[in-house]
Amino acid sequence: MSNTPLSGYTILDLTQFYQGPYATFMLAKAGADVVKIEPPGGESLRLMAPPGKETSMPVAMLNANKRGITLNLKSDKGKDILRRMAKKADALVENYAPGVMDRLGVGFSVLHEINPRMVYASATGFGLSGPDRNNLAMDFTVQAASGVMSTTGYADGPPLRTGAPYVDILGGAHLYAALMTGLLEQARTGVGRLVEVAMIEAVYPCLATVLDQYHRAGRKIPARTGNAFANHNRAPYNVYKAADGYVAIILVTETQWQNLLRAMGRSDLSDDPRFISNTARVENYAATEAVVNGWTNVTTRADIFAATSAAKVPCAPVRDIEEAMNDPHMHGRGTLEWVDHYDYDYPIVLQNSALRFHGTDKVPTTLSPHVGEHNRAIYGEWLGMSDADLAGLKAEGVI
Amino acid sequence: MSNTPLSGYTILDLTQFYQGPYATFMLAKAGADVVKIEPPGGESLRLMAPPGKETSMPVAMLNANKRGITLNLKSDKGKDILRRMAKKADALVENYAPGVMDRLGVGFSVLHEINPRMVYASATGFGLSGPDRNNLAMDFTVQAASGVMSTTGYADGPPLRTGAPYVDILGGAHLYAALMTGLLEQARTGVGRLVEVAMIEAVYPCLATVLDQYHRAGRKIPARTGNAFANHNRAPYNVYKAADGYVAIILVTETQWQNLLRAMGRSDLSDDPRFISNTARVENYAATEAVVNGWTNVTTRADIFAATSAAKVPCAPVRDIEEAMNDPHMHGRGTLEWVDHYDYDYPIVLQNSALRFHGTDKVPTTLSPHVGEHNRAIYGEWLGMSDADLAGLKAEGVI
Repeated sequence: MSNTPLSGYTILDLTQFYQGPYATFMLAKAGADVVKIEPPGGESLRLMAPPGKETSMPVAMLNANKRGITLNLKSDKGKDILRRMAKKADALVENYAPGVMDRLGVGFSVLHEINPRMVYASATGFGLSGPDRNNLAMDFTVQAASGVMSTTGYADGPPLRTGAPYVDILGGAHLYAALMTGLLEQARTGVGRLVEVAMIEAVYPCLATVLDQYHRAGRKIPARTGNAFANHNRAPYNVYKAADGYVAIILVTETQWQNLLRAMGRSDLSDDPRFISNTARVENYAATEAVVNGWTNVTTRADIFAATSAAKVPCAPVRDIEEAMNDPHMHGRGTLEWVDHYDYDYPIVLQNSALRFHGTDKVPTTLSPHVGEHNRAIYGEWLGMSDADLAGLKAEGVI
Repeated sequence: MSNTPLSGYTILDLTQFYQGPYATFMLAKAGADVVKIEPPGGESLRLMAPPGKETSMPVAMLNANKRGITLNLKSDKGKDILRRMAKKADALVENYAPGVMDRLGVGFSVLHEINPRMVYASATGFGLSGPDRNNLAMDFTVQAASGVMSTTGYADGPPLRTGAPYVDILGGAHLYAALMTGLLEQARTGVGRLVEVAMIEAVYPCLATVLDQYHRAGRKIPARTGNAFANHNRAPYNVYKAADGYVAIILVTETQWQNLLRAMGRSDLSDDPRFISNTARVENYAATEAVVNGWTNVTTRADIFAATSAAKVPCAPVRDIEEAMNDPHMHGRGTLEWVDHYDYDYPIVLQNSALRFHGTDKVPTTLSPHVGEHNRAIYGEWLGMSDADLAGLKAEGVI
């Protein structure tokens, strides 16, 4: 038995798309045996794979280290098989719309009676209760409905979506968190609970800063400000054009302003009353920005970063996704690794879990499963079915 | 003893700003006794509160339900007191820069010797190891360095920051997740581990969709596309102007296109070859957008939402932060609540945890503590110090 935190745990994973699969991916990387249960044709996200493939990058990234089986939950035999597996599992995770599992006869109340020890985790867009529970939820629509989208973009333009589907991933991290809390309780009491995460609620705390500016402005909603701080209340605080791209620079303390002046070779301005405090710089916003741009526009990202780092000024190059994917830091830490994948003609980068448990064995990456790849292992070895049973279920469209 | 999942657990919380406090906020709402340990002047985020106040909205939102004490970790007596508390605690969470706790003499290796059972959770921007470990990390700079910022904005403009600091919150959710995994292991083995989360790694999975488009395009980085899908590969998929604001509409299946046509009263286009498939609509992008705008521009958000909901088309009104704060759905579910707070002249909205444990007692909201509010309770009742001890420590600047 390995020394990973979740070794010995078996998780039934009925989730699709991003939120659920991200949570169960981290479970698998923490040592759990995650059994991904897909409809016989594969989960919905598979349908968006390139022609002739089972895998897109999200499938590959979010389903590594899982075992994959097929099961038709609309058939009576399929439901029966799920109930048999639930008897032996430690937890079940699903992200169907509210009520779907109940209508199928395999909801929490039924499964809890079969196995009171099993934790049941539900992930939805808006929750299992409340007036909006049936709203269709995807990352994009939750970005809109939650208020976060309204804070991104320019004052004279529309609210802007964040290109990276962070609401899905945020929901997935919360789902893992809720499930793990349920498993801890199970370890203490022997009983598993229904735990629940709604994406709309997982994203709400992201509003904290903008809500703060709302209250400071006398309960007035700040206009969108592009890359500037809400209500332009801080300077410098922006994405600045460099000679070869962009850099993000933000100042939090006055010491940092003096340090930035030194980094820019502009200590001649250290006593200039226009820039002597954040309040002064906000009042002289354009002049402040001009000073910073005067330096960054003619300096490379690397030189800007080296100078600000030495001066302890918060700054980062804006990196593209190829730079991120090749990041020597994350590759060096073992977080990212190059992997040969059966659905790609060249090596791709996969991530290990962002949860790091010092002193445990690394869980070596195994590829996202083919649809139904582990039917024999799970149904045969774990549930004790014969090859003839499996062939029959296959012929009937149950698996 | 309450039936909350974490009742009986005591957590030492040395975290500041957003990421750490969000994790420990959820711990407190799950029933743990979270002891927030601040420097005698209050944590860094307090310094940004309005003049004369201890509290800004992030302080109020992310520190509810904690007990607050002061402790000067630069003094020998302060370090000694921390070690005494570590002896009795179940976990410690900190988000200092790598190496700070070790240099203070209260790092993992020291505390693990004092109390091998205690879980030690570290949250940083870039991790405890690797070449970038000392980079200054805040939400903004990690948005830039991680690659996610490069995917937001317009092709002819700069990369755009997301107005809501989601990287901080994402880091916090992962931190809770890592800590809870450590507590589960503690329950099984009796030993606590060093667990670690780096923001840069918590945000990487958000790149999955854009990386997919990168690979599909022959390993070519997609240009920024505003609210449209990467490489404009889907239509309709946008934020559309309504008569009274904006709505987000995205289509995933062909059935949804037919349903959207019906919702718009444009079933006359159902066989139109320009729109007959996603491929056709992407080829006729401007014409497709014109059809949708022709309807949304003259229709209210509410009417658009009602029609698309009835037709099962994914859509959401883009809501502002005041609408989010007043959301009847989240208030109805008990996630949001109106609270009187000592640092505000009017009631404010606070959030309960996005982690919902069915069947447990609700943890009633208590306000974010005053700086040092619970010094007597913790140092007196928990550690057994006398009032004279406390007065002495106060006079010496230790607490």
